[in-house]
Amino acid sequence: MTTDPFGWARSLDTLFDQVWTRLSRGVHDRHAPARHPTLATVSTRGRPQARTVVLRAADKGNGTLLVYTDLQSHKVAELQVSPFAALHIWDSGAHLQIRLAASVSILTGTDVAELWRDMPDHGRMAYGSTPSPGTPLSDALGYNKIPDPEAFAVLHLTIESIDVVHLGPDHRRAEYCREGGWVGQWLAP
Amino acid sequence: MTTDPFGWARSLDTLFDQVWTRLSRGVHDRHAPARHPTLATVSTRGRPQARTVVLRAADKGNGTLLVYTDLQSHKVAELQVSPFAALHIWDSGAHLQIRLAASVSILTGTDVAELWRDMPDHGRMAYGSTPSPGTPLSDALGYNKIPDPEAFAVLHLTIESIDVVHLGPDHRRAEYCREGGWVGQWLAP
Repeated sequence: MTTDPFGWARSLDTLFDQVWTRLSRGVHDRHAPARHPTLATVSTRGRPQARTVVLRAADKGNGTLLVYTDLQSHKVAELQVSPFAALHIWDSGAHLQIRLAASVSILTGTDVAELWRDMPDHGRMAYGSTPSPGTPLSDALGYNKIPDPEAFAVLHLTIESIDVVHLGPDHRRAEYCREGGWVGQWLAP
Repeated sequence: MTTDPFGWARSLDTLFDQVWTRLSRGVHDRHAPARHPTLATVSTRGRPQARTVVLRAADKGNGTLLVYTDLQSHKVAELQVSPFAALHIWDSGAHLQIRLAASVSILTGTDVAELWRDMPDHGRMAYGSTPSPGTPLSDALGYNKIPDPEAFAVLHLTIESIDVVHLGPDHRRAEYCREGGWVGQWLAP
């Protein structure tokens, strides 16, 4: 008897569970593919932008994710104008492409004080940069990173839909929407 | 004497060359990180979208890239309205994040007949799907893939700018623009 290692891809429910298993693994294992999703936003000029982020929390019950960023970064300015993000993960081990569409709230100050308090010193180094990210420099290393709680922002992603493709012996694609209570729908790949 | 394996990150010129070396490797080596970039676009509703694509050609002299797609895919419809893309690559071996901003032309029919002719049969399977990609299905496998030259489209990306971050012992970030003749500029990471 052989077992299909991707048997979970055959039903909408188990495929959905697998997506959240992978997201959760990204939060807890820094070597997991979902640790470093690509976050796409729309710039103030209406152009697509994409960059690597670190997944910090994944809440299946609420369908929400957390990503940390520097408040001075371009993505924050973009999200203030167009508060929507696409999050993309390619998990090669699972042969799984996960695409999330989310609306985004930007949390700062007292709302994130507890997360800041719980962060180790080396983690804090990523928030607070002089000059701010993206500023032209005459020397490549002409910047300072000094942890600054005022520069710490948390992107709170409320997932609206999940589009997942499994590239196994058969290709399967499904979509799950918050509005539909996360009941899945198969799609043509 | 020790050699810094990332010595190329220290000058704008060698960093630029490294970006193109990695892009070129993506075209020729299916295991290279640049083989599967994430392509971000803006949907007809103004929302960001991101998905994995396969890099098919990279021309350093012209600053252009090619990606193949199904003409019926959503990304083509999106690019017809907003002909701009961001291409994102995270090359973990090089500790390099490459972000490209490009304008996109959609080539079809006789313009791509030669590329279609040169494609092996198994490659052609990705173009031509009934029903079209994204159509709801009652059964996960209720679709057919029949190679169709009419469904074959090539996205021709004219790169406008390249934003690259090297996460070595020191972090370095630089931008290169077509308008500036690809002369680099260091940025604060």
